[in-house]
Amino acid sequence: MSSLYLGLVHYPVLNKHNEIVQTSVTNLDIHDIARSASVFGINKYFIITPDLPQTEYIQKVIQFWQSGSGQSYNPDRSRALSIIEITNSISESLKLITTQEGMQPIVISTTARKMDDQITFEQIRNLHSKDQPLLLLFGTGYGLTDDIHNEADHILQPIDGTEDYNHLSVRSAVAIVLDRITSAVYKGRN
Amino acid sequence: MSSLYLGLVHYPVLNKHNEIVQTSVTNLDIHDIARSASVFGINKYFIITPDLPQTEYIQKVIQFWQSGSGQSYNPDRSRALSIIEITNSISESLKLITTQEGMQPIVISTTARKMDDQITFEQIRNLHSKDQPLLLLFGTGYGLTDDIHNEADHILQPIDGTEDYNHLSVRSAVAIVLDRITSAVYKGRN
Repeated sequence: MSSLYLGLVHYPVLNKHNEIVQTSVTNLDIHDIARSASVFGINKYFIITPDLPQTEYIQKVIQFWQSGSGQSYNPDRSRALSIIEITNSISESLKLITTQEGMQPIVISTTARKMDDQITFEQIRNLHSKDQPLLLLFGTGYGLTDDIHNEADHILQPIDGTEDYNHLSVRSAVAIVLDRITSAVYKGRN
Repeated sequence: MSSLYLGLVHYPVLNKHNEIVQTSVTNLDIHDIARSASVFGINKYFIITPDLPQTEYIQKVIQFWQSGSGQSYNPDRSRALSIIEITNSISESLKLITTQEGMQPIVISTTARKMDDQITFEQIRNLHSKDQPLLLLFGTGYGLTDDIHNEADHILQPIDGTEDYNHLSVRSAVAIVLDRITSAVYKGRN
């Protein structure tokens, strides 16, 4: 199986007017996604922001849960947060993975929109069954920019619910995508 | 297909010392779960709390997004929140469903623990393919009490990740369970 990496992008992303912005890191995105990533065997969860005060904020949150009262109150949380790495750009995340793995990852961007030539969940499971590491990129705000999609090796198809409403939170989308890629359900176990 | 209902229980639930407590309703549980429920065709999302100030708080949040500036800023959010119903107990939720559907729902409790005689996701999909409505109960805090599990018709097996770490947030767990029950992935569409 390939190593899986996840990146939560705070810049560059879109706002509701389709402008390129930087979003704030939220506490729940740190915790919920670190926990999902830990359940589904992600190697590193990159929180991607070029903003120094935001970086310091994330480090404070992690530090609280990894030392003293936070650590003893909830050691499981400490374990989940240990897979977080803060990077200032997607390309810095790529460099870290390449150094770690000795090869470049396949970059897969995600979106709630239907776009041309998206790969299916079955195709991404096939990629995961091979050797080359995968980096899954998720956007905050109103999603990743077109440049990010254009530069990615693949764009993943959106999560298809049962309704025309498709506004999942990024936390819920990450949980479902990781489950669909890695879960034993797809191997006929239950 | 059966109608699906979801209940997020704030009392009675367990704390980390296995004591029965009431938890606070959190803003993110209101929003994230309403959005997931809307994507996967849930009929009603019951926020279950006997606490009056909490009930007023939830009503204020919903009201903000369903009128005036909140509504015009994000009409999609308004739509998601419209499926919320606040009830003071599980039994009040059951009564509302029974009145609505003309029959009692099958009650299915969820847990992150392995317990005896849990039903599989395949079994719950089979139940969903029939007529009787289903009520899925999720616990906040450290989970539902044993009494709730004992009184439920079925207990759903925990979500099996790839690691021994199984501490998903309730928001992520809801998203994955709804996806596994309803999603077209399981019907060979992708």
